[in-house]
Amino acid sequence: MKNTFGNAITVTLFGESHGPEIGAVLDGLPSGLAVDEAFIAERLRLRRPAGAISTGRQEADPFRIVSGVFGGRTTGTPLAILIPNSDVRSRDYSFGPARPGHADYTAHVRYGGYEDYRGGGHFSGRITAALTAAGAILLDALSQKGIQIGTHVARCAGIDDASFSGNPEADIRKLNASDFAVLNEQKGAEMREAIARAAEEGDSVGGILETMVTGMPAGVGEPWFDTLEGELAHALFSVPAVKGVEFGDGFRMADMKGSEANDPMIIRNGQVATETNHNGGINGGISNGMPLVFRCAVKPTPSIRKEQRTVDMATKQETTISVAGRHDPAIVHRARAVVDSVAAIVIADNLSMRFGTDYLQSVQE
Amino acid sequence: MKNTFGNAITVTLFGESHGPEIGAVLDGLPSGLAVDEAFIAERLRLRRPAGAISTGRQEADPFRIVSGVFGGRTTGTPLAILIPNSDVRSRDYSFGPARPGHADYTAHVRYGGYEDYRGGGHFSGRITAALTAAGAILLDALSQKGIQIGTHVARCAGIDDASFSGNPEADIRKLNASDFAVLNEQKGAEMREAIARAAEEGDSVGGILETMVTGMPAGVGEPWFDTLEGELAHALFSVPAVKGVEFGDGFRMADMKGSEANDPMIIRNGQVATETNHNGGINGGISNGMPLVFRCAVKPTPSIRKEQRTVDMATKQETTISVAGRHDPAIVHRARAVVDSVAAIVIADNLSMRFGTDYLQSVQE
Amino acid sequence: MKNTFGNAITVTLFGESHGPEIGAVLDGLPSGLAVDEAFIAERLRLRRPAGAISTGRQEADPFRIVSGVFGGRTTGTPLAILIPNSDVRSRDYSFGPARPGHADYTAHVRYGGYEDYRGGGHFSGRITAALTAAGAILLDALSQKGIQIGTHVARCAGIDDASFSGNPEADIRKLNASDFAVLNEQKGAEMREAIARAAEEGDSVGGILETMVTGMPAGVGEPWFDTLEGELAHALFSVPAVKGVEFGDGFRMADMKGSEANDPMIIRNGQVATETNHNGGINGGISNGMPLVFRCAVKPTPSIRKEQRTVDMATKQETTISVAGRHDPAIVHRARAVVDSVAAIVIADNLSMRFGTDYLQSVQE
Amino acid sequence: MKNTFGNAITVTLFGESHGPEIGAVLDGLPSGLAVDEAFIAERLRLRRPAGAISTGRQEADPFRIVSGVFGGRTTGTPLAILIPNSDVRSRDYSFGPARPGHADYTAHVRYGGYEDYRGGGHFSGRITAALTAAGAILLDALSQKGIQIGTHVARCAGIDDASFSGNPEADIRKLNASDFAVLNEQKGAEMREAIARAAEEGDSVGGILETMVTGMPAGVGEPWFDTLEGELAHALFSVPAVKGVEFGDGFRMADMKGSEANDPMIIRNGQVATETNHNGGINGGISNGMPLVFRCAVKPTPSIRKEQRTVDMATKQETTISVAGRHDPAIVHRARAVVDSVAAIVIADNLSMRFGTDYLQSVQE
Repeated sequence: MKNTFGNAITVTLFGESHGPEIGAVLDGLPSGLAVDEAFIAERLRLRRPAGAISTGRQEADPFRIVSGVFGGRTTGTPLAILIPNSDVRSRDYSFGPARPGHADYTAHVRYGGYEDYRGGGHFSGRITAALTAAGAILLDALSQKGIQIGTHVARCAGIDDASFSGNPEADIRKLNASDFAVLNEQKGAEMREAIARAAEEGDSVGGILETMVTGMPAGVGEPWFDTLEGELAHALFSVPAVKGVEFGDGFRMADMKGSEANDPMIIRNGQVATETNHNGGINGGISNGMPLVFRCAVKPTPSIRKEQRTVDMATKQETTISVAGRHDPAIVHRARAVVDSVAAIVIADNLSMRFGTDYLQSVQE
Repeated sequence: MKNTFGNAITVTLFGESHGPEIGAVLDGLPSGLAVDEAFIAERLRLRRPAGAISTGRQEADPFRIVSGVFGGRTTGTPLAILIPNSDVRSRDYSFGPARPGHADYTAHVRYGGYEDYRGGGHFSGRITAALTAAGAILLDALSQKGIQIGTHVARCAGIDDASFSGNPEADIRKLNASDFAVLNEQKGAEMREAIARAAEEGDSVGGILETMVTGMPAGVGEPWFDTLEGELAHALFSVPAVKGVEFGDGFRMADMKGSEANDPMIIRNGQVATETNHNGGINGGISNGMPLVFRCAVKPTPSIRKEQRTVDMATKQETTISVAGRHDPAIVHRARAVVDSVAAIVIADNLSMRFGTDYLQSVQE
Repeated sequence: MKNTFGNAITVTLFGESHGPEIGAVLDGLPSGLAVDEAFIAERLRLRRPAGAISTGRQEADPFRIVSGVFGGRTTGTPLAILIPNSDVRSRDYSFGPARPGHADYTAHVRYGGYEDYRGGGHFSGRITAALTAAGAILLDALSQKGIQIGTHVARCAGIDDASFSGNPEADIRKLNASDFAVLNEQKGAEMREAIARAAEEGDSVGGILETMVTGMPAGVGEPWFDTLEGELAHALFSVPAVKGVEFGDGFRMADMKGSEANDPMIIRNGQVATETNHNGGINGGISNGMPLVFRCAVKPTPSIRKEQRTVDMATKQETTISVAGRHDPAIVHRARAVVDSVAAIVIADNLSMRFGTDYLQSVQE
Repeated sequence: MKNTFGNAITVTLFGESHGPEIGAVLDGLPSGLAVDEAFIAERLRLRRPAGAISTGRQEADPFRIVSGVFGGRTTGTPLAILIPNSDVRSRDYSFGPARPGHADYTAHVRYGGYEDYRGGGHFSGRITAALTAAGAILLDALSQKGIQIGTHVARCAGIDDASFSGNPEADIRKLNASDFAVLNEQKGAEMREAIARAAEEGDSVGGILETMVTGMPAGVGEPWFDTLEGELAHALFSVPAVKGVEFGDGFRMADMKGSEANDPMIIRNGQVATETNHNGGINGGISNGMPLVFRCAVKPTPSIRKEQRTVDMATKQETTISVAGRHDPAIVHRARAVVDSVAAIVIADNLSMRFGTDYLQSVQE
């Protein structure tokens, strides 16, 4: 389905970095959801580059919702969000040498030279603005159903943030109010310094995002193929620079014994629960009622000033490139807003498949 | 789509651990593919428990192909493979206490108590026999198109195997001829010892599988959602016990600088190539012509003899469980055959979407 | 998706006319549905050739459900039904001259000569046994939710049956108990005579099936693409020999004025209703609470003894053919069971998408 | 998938009659297709109301393509077309009494009163402007591959047009240059008179559209579910007011004998062909190389000035309505442009599934 994702709720993305507008179409929404444009704007703000550590490109992202909302509430028919590209500087980019680590070469092969190469075209992180905006509507709706989603920069440039506390709802509230989403501010300051140092060197750094979803009902997901892990991972690998996705203790479970990795089951507050959550809230592809926990590995921004060996697409000759223009020395801290939106879309879709089209609506009545 | 996966080529799974038959339906195959039943049997053998380190359950997996093959070649219409469950010992299992780390509880919630709980029912690893058989047909077809797939136990019980060499095709041939898929036999022997020790303790171990795909054409995949990473990860999380999937250097890229993580582009044998392959053969969701490399974290087998705390599904009271019956003290070494099959299905599907229904057929003429 | 259809509930078909087994996989079923094997057998009986007017091929259709049922109820995981082909007479068929009106030639082009041509292979009406069996499970479940489906031979060989009466539920009960589904027995007798006459001439006749669905809730369907009409028609065109599908007054609406075709809206028993039902229970792609009414044009059986001009597939020379073997001089009266099953699958799927996975289950509790 | 349709090539629709913009996103296009904006404008013009016989609403449809085109050619990434709603007169409409024959009531039930009821909202025929524009790009691309699509008003207000001649390509050229698409101009004049008379009476008329597709390759389609008929019908029932779809002789085949309905197979110009084309170019769900022929029944416009009985949505009381505002006394002649676009999308999608993403591109090189 290419640029469309989902079953009961779908999102379709379009647009290029330097085209006139980018956008997203959300379909399958319940009718009657309040659409809070200020909340969407706030989520777009969290995704935008912040201060000295990010690219100079600053767009206010003045989105327009052109369909699917009537009287401030969703109609239940497709909701299209458009975001104009206002701050376009095409001269910063020119085709020729492919940027290593980017999609320049693969796009060239895939589209036979017809691709819009300016600023990465359709592959640009710019497109995530539309994805973030679309997901914000579902983040909001899930929140009203008691399902909270928050992401922190668990690691950046080799520096670890603190872990989620015993009160993850409070942690999520804090993260969603933070421009640089960490649980330990001191660690955050160190990360920002490391990012700034990389920028000075004409280089970039990566990191790990950790997401928690609280309030997730048990019994959502499927045993084969449309496992909750598979659905989430499918979509999360669309977040640019994500090269790994793990659930619960993920790769660390490879070194555990069964007696360590199995979460003992208990009765807590009259409900079946697990004592630990090594499995990240999912067993056999289906949610178990514990918080969902997953982590995304975000590679360092491929656009760097440092000289790199590459190939010129036009001449097919080896050459070198120093990527000029405005670039983020890290994107991991910006990607958190995108990851939250992607998670919201996938979770809302799975809830709607399981419990019907109106599931997210009911609390609004 | 639940138990069906794919676009141009789809696979549908059905069956339960202790039901009469399990099976898979492969649809969208090109016509004219030679179906080598001996090769399917060999792939099923690689998936079966081997010797002292695995469960006592030994089924010969005498599959039947009941449709879609005529005169030894695929017809292009759905190919159904059925595998009877011959060695069923229902008395080993009984419902009541949920097995921690398993899907017993989530299945109970999801299906309201109507699930077939015997031996994990539809969630059982047994179902992967059908998946392995279905994928074997595509493994074979891809191989004839020059696309080779091989998986090794990169890590087990804390012991690392050697890495792929500079001759990955030779490595893959070696792996596909090995009962215990490692590149360094000494490391393999150590792993088997560690597995045996865990078994003695009534415990289990996990590991990491690393897969390489050589001969993959560049230009396959999509920029958003149906990225090659997203498609592969979606399906790989169906392999039981997989809790993490990473591409190329994956989570290790989080600690790299851009100047380290970007693969320098060069001309090699007149073709655009990359000097390193930190990105695992995929940029922007699209294959770049380098080998695909991905790793799956496999958690330790949840069925262990050691006593664990749990909840009885019938009484909703806390209790303890020591999982009796035949169980694998590790499944990572068996899952390799499943991972190969899953990879073959996803890659064949993506190639067929890109190049048409007959793409895999052409070399056969 | 080829041989798989549906969204929340899917059906996958496989098998060939002369292969060892045909089958269907139903996925997305709610758990807890009682599975009445006698009812499935009865529906298969209604589909089988009856007496002198149909093909001599008589198979008892001894189906086996090999997964997805436990303790007589659906588990909610894929339900696979297998039906062996017992009465196979391969000698009746041989490849060479394509049978006009059949898929022999199109299959030959589509599958490049690798198709199983025996008895039409995967294109054979035989496959509808599996489809009928799968749909029977949903017919039964819908019936328990108050949704009744019935089909009559509205026209055959130029003879019209009576129309549905003011008590369509009674009509549906009568039809579902009839071997030859007509509302007026005299008309049915005339049709059977006409069919027998055609058989004597070595020829065949067609007809029109009209289906009514009572108890359908309002508000199911989508405005664009996945209209209830579009979904039903998509699946109904898979019923072999169907060449037209219309809803309500269908093609007769082309000659009406708006003032005639619009159904006046009224309050009946405190509910919004329409006085007439020219629109067949659907407006704007969405059910309006009135009975669904649709009609399928069924062409005459293409297999006829009369000599016809054709082309030999092997030699690509013109030749003639007189189709030997056992053939139905009409299939319209047998197709009714298939149409009922297809309708049940599509309606159950749409209800499940709208109201959640457990919608069909609730009455069973 | 609701407002998204297709497999290899998809179209997503959004917008409401009186919202700021409507639009469509086309995905899965090959790269390198020339995008002829004048041709799109011409197709939109053919869809617009013409002269005295149609609604007074006259919008110039100044579409914008905001993504997916670079240097005048498709990039292969999603192409979004936006069309602003300029001539909006909201005062003509107000909610309250549901318009019989429209989706007012079903939308009210489906969306719980949150629907945008102004002018039919998302159900409005206005949305077909976006669908027509999207399809125009594929009509153009197909034409360059030698596949021509044309639709005529085969019947309107009881008046029959002439049939397609022995030179259908010439007929199609003529139709695509005509504002009122008939093969016999005299018949067209009579139809327009009948439409005008209905308008004077405050009433409306319906008709039948017949479409021919020449140059269609054999071997495209699937045996079950995704039959070419099923795929086309699925999408065609989205064209507002279509209540029936038939292929070839369709419902007339119900009265034929097999010896009449079967198309004799012959060799013509060295190719397998059929002497007649009763089956409309499709056997067993797969194209046979003859022209595709299908017909859509279009009901009379439900918006009529004549007083009708209805129910007020707000009060749930019976009342009457005389639909004021600008309305078409017939839409059959306008729908032809929509039908052509829908056919182009479905055919291009099926060709791309069969022969790969680049199939439509190749002639452009």
